[in-house]
Amino acid sequence: MASGSTTRARLLNAAGVSFSAKAPDLEEAALRRGIAGAGDAAQLLANRKALAVSEDLPGAWVIGSDQILALDTQMLGKPGSRAAARAQLKQLQGSTHALVTAVSLARGGRTAWQHTDRAELTMRELSDAAIERYLDRAGSAVLGSPGAYHLEGLGATLFERVRGDYFGILGLPLLPLLAALRERGALPE
Amino acid sequence: MASGSTTRARLLNAAGVSFSAKAPDLEEAALRRGIAGAGDAAQLLANRKALAVSEDLPGAWVIGSDQILALDTQMLGKPGSRAAARAQLKQLQGSTHALVTAVSLARGGRTAWQHTDRAELTMRELSDAAIERYLDRAGSAVLGSPGAYHLEGLGATLFERVRGDYFGILGLPLLPLLAALRERGALPE
Repeated sequence: MASGSTTRARLLNAAGVSFSAKAPDLEEAALRRGIAGAGDAAQLLANRKALAVSEDLPGAWVIGSDQILALDTQMLGKPGSRAAARAQLKQLQGSTHALVTAVSLARGGRTAWQHTDRAELTMRELSDAAIERYLDRAGSAVLGSPGAYHLEGLGATLFERVRGDYFGILGLPLLPLLAALRERGALPE
Repeated sequence: MASGSTTRARLLNAAGVSFSAKAPDLEEAALRRGIAGAGDAAQLLANRKALAVSEDLPGAWVIGSDQILALDTQMLGKPGSRAAARAQLKQLQGSTHALVTAVSLARGGRTAWQHTDRAELTMRELSDAAIERYLDRAGSAVLGSPGAYHLEGLGATLFERVRGDYFGILGLPLLPLLAALRERGALPE
């Protein structure tokens, strides 16, 4: 898997998939720049991540994935700092945003399969005090996720409604990926 | 929480909710008998579980929950044995079933709130050999779940498509429950 994400690794492990992980060395922000649609941007990144690792491991099936948060026409990435997380949550509270998650399979330096998933998440109205309390409790791990939340953790307390595939929201559309791996003989029937 | 389920406990813990768990002593199968609809049966059970514990803890908010698997007009409960799990999987493979999950809040021996959630899950076609291999790997924990699967584990490999709330599928519709607890002042804003 061309990712250093512990959540993605946990999903694959839970599904009984044997794999090794290697985070590719890409300038993600630079690659995304200039691409208008979140779906296109996420898919390009997922493909590029898988291809980058595939070049070094020609016989292996390599999984690439990328996730982008879209609020109206704006795309939000990883906040990286508490100040940026606070600003993202202030923007997101009280409205609905999309999480676009792309996954890709590469082998021998070529993209063999790709899939994009879209979920809609409605965040409840949050006071500034509630945002601070959330950031105090959630800790620094959420600074690496678009929107500064993990739905599988304390992030669940922020939402009013979630529509879409849970695995996609966590960063890896697991069911289509497992089907693609089975079809290619990379997993048993 | 009126449940001994480790998955439900894990969901509440991850969302930062402080609680204690106490499994109620109820004859679940007898209570369900004679109720035609899965939604009605699950809600009755969730309410009865919360009420049973609430009687002993009059000041506490008590969460009750129940889940029933519905395949056409048939309701499936916990398989309990490998033979029953095998039979359920043979029935479920290649078709779509529903998971109906009810949750209830009781205080002072009265039901204060209730909610029922419904998800649709499409299991892929599975050969007898694939079912045996799955049961070998999944272990005895899945014998306590309707349909003999945990979507958060190896169960993900059985499905083609899942539509509905993931938390409900895991046994506890978390977002409506958290909202109900906040509205009643049992959780901070």
